[in-house]
Amino acid sequence: MVAPREGVDFPPLNGSDVKIGIIKTRWNKDIVDNLVKGVKEGLTECSVPAENILEIEVPGSYELPLATRFLALSNQVDAIVSIGVLIKGDTLHFEYIAESVSNGLMNVQLQTMTPTVFGVLTCLNLNQAKERSSGPDNHGISWGKTAVEMSVLRRYALG
Amino acid sequence: MVAPREGVDFPPLNGSDVKIGIIKTRWNKDIVDNLVKGVKEGLTECSVPAENILEIEVPGSYELPLATRFLALSNQVDAIVSIGVLIKGDTLHFEYIAESVSNGLMNVQLQTMTPTVFGVLTCLNLNQAKERSSGPDNHGISWGKTAVEMSVLRRYALG
Amino acid sequence: MVAPREGVDFPPLNGSDVKIGIIKTRWNKDIVDNLVKGVKEGLTECSVPAENILEIEVPGSYELPLATRFLALSNQVDAIVSIGVLIKGDTLHFEYIAESVSNGLMNVQLQTMTPTVFGVLTCLNLNQAKERSSGPDNHGISWGKTAVEMSVLRRYALG
Amino acid sequence: MVAPREGVDFPPLNGSDVKIGIIKTRWNKDIVDNLVKGVKEGLTECSVPAENILEIEVPGSYELPLATRFLALSNQVDAIVSIGVLIKGDTLHFEYIAESVSNGLMNVQLQTMTPTVFGVLTCLNLNQAKERSSGPDNHGISWGKTAVEMSVLRRYALG
Amino acid sequence: MVAPREGVDFPPLNGSDVKIGIIKTRWNKDIVDNLVKGVKEGLTECSVPAENILEIEVPGSYELPLATRFLALSNQVDAIVSIGVLIKGDTLHFEYIAESVSNGLMNVQLQTMTPTVFGVLTCLNLNQAKERSSGPDNHGISWGKTAVEMSVLRRYALG
Repeated sequence: MVAPREGVDFPPLNGSDVKIGIIKTRWNKDIVDNLVKGVKEGLTECSVPAENILEIEVPGSYELPLATRFLALSNQVDAIVSIGVLIKGDTLHFEYIAESVSNGLMNVQLQTMTPTVFGVLTCLNLNQAKERSSGPDNHGISWGKTAVEMSVLRRYALG
Repeated sequence: MVAPREGVDFPPLNGSDVKIGIIKTRWNKDIVDNLVKGVKEGLTECSVPAENILEIEVPGSYELPLATRFLALSNQVDAIVSIGVLIKGDTLHFEYIAESVSNGLMNVQLQTMTPTVFGVLTCLNLNQAKERSSGPDNHGISWGKTAVEMSVLRRYALG
Repeated sequence: MVAPREGVDFPPLNGSDVKIGIIKTRWNKDIVDNLVKGVKEGLTECSVPAENILEIEVPGSYELPLATRFLALSNQVDAIVSIGVLIKGDTLHFEYIAESVSNGLMNVQLQTMTPTVFGVLTCLNLNQAKERSSGPDNHGISWGKTAVEMSVLRRYALG
Repeated sequence: MVAPREGVDFPPLNGSDVKIGIIKTRWNKDIVDNLVKGVKEGLTECSVPAENILEIEVPGSYELPLATRFLALSNQVDAIVSIGVLIKGDTLHFEYIAESVSNGLMNVQLQTMTPTVFGVLTCLNLNQAKERSSGPDNHGISWGKTAVEMSVLRRYALG
Repeated sequence: MVAPREGVDFPPLNGSDVKIGIIKTRWNKDIVDNLVKGVKEGLTECSVPAENILEIEVPGSYELPLATRFLALSNQVDAIVSIGVLIKGDTLHFEYIAESVSNGLMNVQLQTMTPTVFGVLTCLNLNQAKERSSGPDNHGISWGKTAVEMSVLRRYALG
């Protein structure tokens, strides 16, 4: 069993009938795969059955908001974890993508009322991304639990 | 009785029939708990009965806007205080979350017409967050009063 | 008679039948009061009668956009001046509030089609705010005239 | 005949039946007047008749988006050039106005489907603004041509 | 055959019945032309027939979002690649245009549900733009493939 990363604890969550979507980019595939693995660990700890997890792949982070919107509108899942890795580069590409994507995902979750976990690492270098995607500090673990908790809240809210 | 922090005074506010929602994150739990305590002090000073305060918990700040939208649309409260703590870290996570959340909460309050107090501390270090969440400078106190004042304004505006 | 601050001149404006809303914060009360005084001077120069000026108070700048939206939707005024003072502090509170509020007020005026003058000083220190709120450089004067001019434009536009 | 500024060439454009709106601020009047002159040169080169040019004045740049929205919704013009000059100052006024206005004008053109040329100079000092508003580098010239080209595209798009 | 740039691999994609729009600016024409060439290479690798590619030209990057919206609403294409080049200059024009355009394109794709590839280089100097638009690192190649992949996802999502 993996300890949650410092800073946030989760109450016991029963996700046995919750459906979760994972949307992941193929940029920085190794890191993203680790994050997805972390998300699944978190989901498993909350008893989400493997068959309730829907996984979709897109090329890069700028594609995440629209893919998230498509999935949210399909009514197939209760919450979505949108995963990507952005690394600061020589140009300002990182800055404008990171801003559009973080605001875009926020807009999508507010409009569709489908909780969307911001699973995009916005790092200054590759090493930072590695640290946040491996071992007990794998951010995916808490992202998975967040998705379950927000699914429960959503059901309560929407009746 | 706690003196208000420098900068803003409140007129006498009668919140005896006002209903307030508090949405709080579990990240930086100790600080958030202090802020919630401050909010409740402010509400009590305005005569808001304890049973009129609805408290909801989410994992982190990125979850605040959607939870706020759910609560606003439920018509259970007159105003909401959305509380979280963001601390500048080594990556740019802080910057993108802080921007999405502050804009997201603004959009939610404008669209739902439910006043939402921005109770998210955006600090450079933990110490700044501690200072702003304890003693007479506990920002929660004025956030609570702000929620009551805006509830009154909203009733007046919406008739 | 007060000379307009350098940079912008106004044509003669007849605001005798124009109704203007002033929304002001209580943070930095002295400076805000001076700005309000400046706005009223500007309105008087345009012949707006005192009884056509509606004044509303909110705690802080984050509350301005929603209060502005409430007032705009009430159809009681032709234009609104939203007044606050933000001073750069030790945390990043200033930056996120200033961005949300400036974008929020812009969105409110575009959606409600009620001209909203951006009367929020975004200063690095208190002294800058004092300079811009007193004497002939009191920004409120031109804000008041701007509100009248935009009221006239709005009437022309909306027929 | 004035050479276009380095960077962009225009194809021959026939704007003889195109109607263009110019919205201009009174702040930095001399520079704005030069930019307007440049726009008209560009329009004339595209055969837009003088009587097809509608000119509207507002006080400052924060007023541009709403005035642009009013004009777009009036169906009197095929495209709009919104002109202002913002100069970096001692406070952060410049930054928040520039962001709200550039995003605001973008939103207006997307919502109204009326092309809006971003004719706002965002300069660090007055000299930069002068250079970009005079002689062959007068940015207004390409703005005028841009308005005509986008008018043609719009007609094609909207049928 | 050109190797994909480091960072992202594409699965085999069959774009034989996919229709793609390319919207390109005339600013920095040489670089943009190279990027377009790259996009077409990517499309050809995915078997998109040349007659299924629709190409539209606009003056500059600020025009991209509206032109993209026009094309998306025309229902003529499954996805769009919007191409421009922005180079950091002496003023802050670059910053405000880049932000408006990246957010604008994101909004357009979310609202129209037509995938839009962010094909705008945001560079500090011309050399960076040249490097990213030529040889095997020509970003256009992956942009073309991204457009095809997202077209397939869209058809799956919209049924």
